[in-house]
Amino acid sequence: MSKKPKIVIIGGGTGAFVVLSGLKNAPVDLVAIISMMDSGGSNRVLRDEFGLLPTSDIRQCLVALAEDSGDQEILRQLFTYRFHQGVGISGMTFGNLFMAALADIYKNQVKAVEVVQRLLHTKGKILPVTLDDVQLVARYENGYQVIGEHSIDEPKHDGRMKIVEIETIPQAKIYAVAKKEILSADLIIIGPGDLYTSLVPNLIVKGIPEAIRKSRAKRVLILNLMTKYGQTYGFKASDFVSVVEKYLGVGMIDDVLINKSQKTSLKILRRYKEEQAEPVKDDLEGKFPFRVIRANIVSGEEVKKIAGDNLKRSMLRHDPQKLAKEILKLI
Amino acid sequence: MSKKPKIVIIGGGTGAFVVLSGLKNAPVDLVAIISMMDSGGSNRVLRDEFGLLPTSDIRQCLVALAEDSGDQEILRQLFTYRFHQGVGISGMTFGNLFMAALADIYKNQVKAVEVVQRLLHTKGKILPVTLDDVQLVARYENGYQVIGEHSIDEPKHDGRMKIVEIETIPQAKIYAVAKKEILSADLIIIGPGDLYTSLVPNLIVKGIPEAIRKSRAKRVLILNLMTKYGQTYGFKASDFVSVVEKYLGVGMIDDVLINKSQKTSLKILRRYKEEQAEPVKDDLEGKFPFRVIRANIVSGEEVKKIAGDNLKRSMLRHDPQKLAKEILKLI
Repeated sequence: MSKKPKIVIIGGGTGAFVVLSGLKNAPVDLVAIISMMDSGGSNRVLRDEFGLLPTSDIRQCLVALAEDSGDQEILRQLFTYRFHQGVGISGMTFGNLFMAALADIYKNQVKAVEVVQRLLHTKGKILPVTLDDVQLVARYENGYQVIGEHSIDEPKHDGRMKIVEIETIPQAKIYAVAKKEILSADLIIIGPGDLYTSLVPNLIVKGIPEAIRKSRAKRVLILNLMTKYGQTYGFKASDFVSVVEKYLGVGMIDDVLINKSQKTSLKILRRYKEEQAEPVKDDLEGKFPFRVIRANIVSGEEVKKIAGDNLKRSMLRHDPQKLAKEILKLI
Repeated sequence: MSKKPKIVIIGGGTGAFVVLSGLKNAPVDLVAIISMMDSGGSNRVLRDEFGLLPTSDIRQCLVALAEDSGDQEILRQLFTYRFHQGVGISGMTFGNLFMAALADIYKNQVKAVEVVQRLLHTKGKILPVTLDDVQLVARYENGYQVIGEHSIDEPKHDGRMKIVEIETIPQAKIYAVAKKEILSADLIIIGPGDLYTSLVPNLIVKGIPEAIRKSRAKRVLILNLMTKYGQTYGFKASDFVSVVEKYLGVGMIDDVLINKSQKTSLKILRRYKEEQAEPVKDDLEGKFPFRVIRANIVSGEEVKKIAGDNLKRSMLRHDPQKLAKEILKLI
């Protein structure tokens, strides 16, 4: 009996959402290991007022992998819903409240996430990278430091500064189930995603780089399409690779998947420019300890905002299907 | 092809919950028509901050009729859950937030309730008595008036005073679908339930008494076990009947179902006495335009509080199965 190949996605945020959406119906054993360091909005309430771990990244993955028909489609819509009414409720996402209620009913947040996966009929498994309650702390090139994922993501400082060190306080340790999945993976996908708020937060969890290094899986880094003010201002492709190698070790990445450069509409570029962001330049020429795969993996359409969700979303995105196609070639 | 007999329950609160729980698995077509005048706690938030109709009574009926296995059992538990954490969320019931989110997604609160019934696989149909946004106004024997269901239910005044008039402002009109169900009912059950906050609020909806009178169904009033400070202080069985007849018309009740008197533990009676409540005395001797049915319909066990729900609950309750047995004899 041949087992389905196991693909482990490590990341968070919109990037993980897109990869999971693409792979959802593929004949693979899908596991998402998701960062747990969110600290803004709904997550601050979860942390400070409910004493729970932040679940927004997990929530997005649940939505990505949920069955999209019947009753599950309704629950999926609810999970995406953000309240905009109610003095004390406005801004909360329904999915987070759903998980908070279950966490209290079961007195166990991991069990709550498992139950939600059952209710949503998710294709694949979503695991927190850690069960530790930690905060991200970033130090910039000028010595300036900030605490909390949201302080990195929405910088009040000069967002062109480079981050030179990032850690969790206290030190987060790997969730044992996540470790097992990494060790038995056939393919490990890192990214795409915000480098310092979705990807690296996983790589600085004690046990994660070790497990990735120990795994016999092929390890693939998917590069972002755009730079991001506050995190990767002015970054080229090689800069992204360098940061990941810093935490994983040089030579630990087998393949780097990058979008084959193509025309982006001036209108979109202009809008990104207002946010001090630009397309990631492909400077991966020469010899590397990894293979560079260039493919058309960008979405043809501009991304619309999700109804009920007022967060700012990237306009240019990876195409879930194109991305899945390239990923599946690697197993 | 023989159609299943249709039983229409008119009421709200714990009383409707108990009747529906008992009839849930009976081979009948079950319809609950539920009062929509709640104004305290979670419902105040729904009304004032979400601009929605109050759904706490409907929520309880949904829980009563939900499938109690598999995924539905989890959703049922969630619907009963009341948040006790979160500065702006504590006190809100999950079920009300669930329906509020759906009401916003569908831009239609009735549709939201329908969708929840689908998700919970409810046995039977739950309908709001009215879609009008109204408040209860009660006038007491000394001329004192209060606005809002919660002001009647949790009186700040002398709760021994009798209510002499109760109305909705503005005048509520019957929900058309509810009217249709009443007209095609085989059996109409009124009560048990708090007289002035669960039962009469339905009977003062324009169109409800008219539909009940027009219906060819048998009409049954189920009497409460206990009097209630603030609503029915010192009431005997005949007082309950008189109030219902005042709104429905004398001679409109076919059967009155009352608990056959039996011993209640002194401990329970003492606790009720603290709340100025006592067993409803059966004074229905003599000739009436209705039949009096006396049966053992009280629950053998003291009722525990529902986890996560901090509301005060009656200690002595009707037994769902015993009640259902008596009701089913009437068709």
